[in-house]
Amino acid sequence: MASTFVDKLMPELSALFDTIREQSRDGAGVTRDAFGARETQAANTLSVFARSKGLQAGADAAGNLHVTPAGAFTHPPEIMLASHLDSVPVGGNYDGLAGVIAGLAVLFALEQANAAKSGIRVVGFRGEESPWFSQAYLGSRLLLGELTRADLESLRRYDTGKTLAEHIVAIGGNVDSGNLQPTIDLSKLNAYYELHIEQAPLLESLGLPVAIATAIRGNIRYPFAACRGQYAHSAAVPRHLRRDALIATAKLIAFADQCWQELIDRGNDDLVFTCGIFQTDSAEHAMTKVPGIVNFTLNIGGTKDSIMEELHSRISTCATELARAHNVVFDFGRRVGTPAVNLDKSLIAGLERACAEIGLRSHTMPTVGHDAAGFQRRGIPAAVLLVRNSNGSHNPAEHMEMSDFAAAVKVLAAHVLKRCQESR
Amino acid sequence: MASTFVDKLMPELSALFDTIREQSRDGAGVTRDAFGARETQAANTLSVFARSKGLQAGADAAGNLHVTPAGAFTHPPEIMLASHLDSVPVGGNYDGLAGVIAGLAVLFALEQANAAKSGIRVVGFRGEESPWFSQAYLGSRLLLGELTRADLESLRRYDTGKTLAEHIVAIGGNVDSGNLQPTIDLSKLNAYYELHIEQAPLLESLGLPVAIATAIRGNIRYPFAACRGQYAHSAAVPRHLRRDALIATAKLIAFADQCWQELIDRGNDDLVFTCGIFQTDSAEHAMTKVPGIVNFTLNIGGTKDSIMEELHSRISTCATELARAHNVVFDFGRRVGTPAVNLDKSLIAGLERACAEIGLRSHTMPTVGHDAAGFQRRGIPAAVLLVRNSNGSHNPAEHMEMSDFAAAVKVLAAHVLKRCQESR
Repeated sequence: MASTFVDKLMPELSALFDTIREQSRDGAGVTRDAFGARETQAANTLSVFARSKGLQAGADAAGNLHVTPAGAFTHPPEIMLASHLDSVPVGGNYDGLAGVIAGLAVLFALEQANAAKSGIRVVGFRGEESPWFSQAYLGSRLLLGELTRADLESLRRYDTGKTLAEHIVAIGGNVDSGNLQPTIDLSKLNAYYELHIEQAPLLESLGLPVAIATAIRGNIRYPFAACRGQYAHSAAVPRHLRRDALIATAKLIAFADQCWQELIDRGNDDLVFTCGIFQTDSAEHAMTKVPGIVNFTLNIGGTKDSIMEELHSRISTCATELARAHNVVFDFGRRVGTPAVNLDKSLIAGLERACAEIGLRSHTMPTVGHDAAGFQRRGIPAAVLLVRNSNGSHNPAEHMEMSDFAAAVKVLAAHVLKRCQESR
Repeated sequence: MASTFVDKLMPELSALFDTIREQSRDGAGVTRDAFGARETQAANTLSVFARSKGLQAGADAAGNLHVTPAGAFTHPPEIMLASHLDSVPVGGNYDGLAGVIAGLAVLFALEQANAAKSGIRVVGFRGEESPWFSQAYLGSRLLLGELTRADLESLRRYDTGKTLAEHIVAIGGNVDSGNLQPTIDLSKLNAYYELHIEQAPLLESLGLPVAIATAIRGNIRYPFAACRGQYAHSAAVPRHLRRDALIATAKLIAFADQCWQELIDRGNDDLVFTCGIFQTDSAEHAMTKVPGIVNFTLNIGGTKDSIMEELHSRISTCATELARAHNVVFDFGRRVGTPAVNLDKSLIAGLERACAEIGLRSHTMPTVGHDAAGFQRRGIPAAVLLVRNSNGSHNPAEHMEMSDFAAAVKVLAAHVLKRCQESR
């Protein structure tokens, strides 16, 4: 039985996490730089480990790590278990890596049960985290053939200044093909699974080790919004002559918060709203000056595009009214974002059955952007399994109990084993 | 008649403004550094001009400029006409200087009418603007004997790094007396007049050249307020688990604005509220992070201490409620400020009569901090006459029409002339 095997495997997997943590250590946290040396070192350590278990390991043209049963490396994948190898700068050890190691564990379990098929494949993506090249999901988008040559030549890593193309060549990849094609044959791929630590303390607050994601939140974002009024003497100028950019913006955010609560009260409990940046201008502001400009960001997230649009629309209308009332100008700047993605219902149901099988209470909830979204958008059924993490992600305090990890791996292993057995 | 004389004097005064503007020019604006070279140059230019008119000019121990009728320099002043010599860095030419030149003009008019008494004195204060030594009113406080030796040794100019004591010595002043006494005999001083450009465009909006100030706004200020919550993933963490420092602070400011409007609607139209600084932390914030800290300022101004306290109290109560609702901590830090000062009713009435006399519509309104406040607080009746300025103060665009200046000088001259004649 897969669960017993997973339990036996855990000390080895725990040591593997520790080895890679030591190799990636950067001050208090770990840094695995996208399309760079430490990410490559993690891939190599995982390859060595996989080969020691009799599996085949190697890279695709983008440098993504691929692990398959022996002799199956060129076989078109049918089931993919994947996550990413990189971390944010000075981040945690589990964000990404846990999903790749979970994939290996499931593959080992299938091999041990003589259930592994040639179409089973574990992938460790390069460059999922956005800080490195100001764009996320680079490895999986290269695998899916979704980047252009222009992307390869224009995206530059913030620290090295080198292009993505230069980085791919430096790690032994190949960027020769003019129009970029998928790095592997995707024609038979019909299921994508990703285990990932939760990026919020929701499971912690619920006292649950594992959740099955129902959807990946989309977002509507304004990275460079501004409100412009006029600087004025704080004591001399009366209210009716002010053009106070700050009070207008504060009221906009207070209004957005109120709308957000109303939409939650109407049942949209997955909706999120964040103003992450809000700044008067350090070069000009003072306690004794009415602020003439505020720079800020708006960030709406949710699993229902229509609800995000509703909140967006109400915020826009409010900005128009506040601009009139306070004699200021709101300029939200460029709108960016992605639509929400519903994950595959059939895979969710399968994972719920697997939870029941191993005696784990199944819980479902939406999650945030992962490589999985790109597969689901391409019509490849995708699922995400979340593991409890008490301290948030993208920081060294990120934490995962190995017992929670084991529970999640058991769910995945039980589910994939059943799939393989049923399709025999 | 004084008005005719003032009109005749205007071309000379206009040239005097221009000379000092050229001497103080600093890029687009003027800079007269407190207790420094350019402030001294302005004092010297004014002294030369005063002496050319047969007046006596010199400095007190603090370096303040004093101008009296000939032979009256050691006479205890009874009526003082004053304002300040310094400007903010890259400020305007009229803020402060207009009041000193107005004083000289009134003194010339009195001399010309053979009405000048030994007790008439014009003073140009050093260092009124707070940017230089992080404290305002230094020259007038030295004149009033209100600074201590510790102040002289601890206050340092932001650009030179030198102490106020060092600066006073450098401009030829004297800081030897252990406990600082008033620099002149104040025992007979019974009226203080200050002409100053308005620091708001209120007169501009009313179409009036001159106003008589009724009071100097006090203030309640928090220069270092903060709200502390917890950074979190903007998409992963649901509303009920957030500790969003920004939304809590935005709501506090929106609430303060609402209370402010309510208090204005109750008749307190002189009340002002400003949040001049509001910043998420550049080192940690991001569009995709719930903000863990906001640093901000609070600044309440008004002519009624009880109304300022009411607004303050309501903001404090709101902060307590928001802290509970959003699971954040508000720490307003050190409270600073000064009480409001009502200016002398008898002087106001006298100036109103003078307006009527010269055929000018008299208008009254509160104003902001000026050297006058220190005299009124010491029990010396004080008045402030405001001159229209369309572009705000503390910036190079500050503007005063010479015809408006002439109107204000005529009011002052008519009033002081009457006082001198009545006390004969």
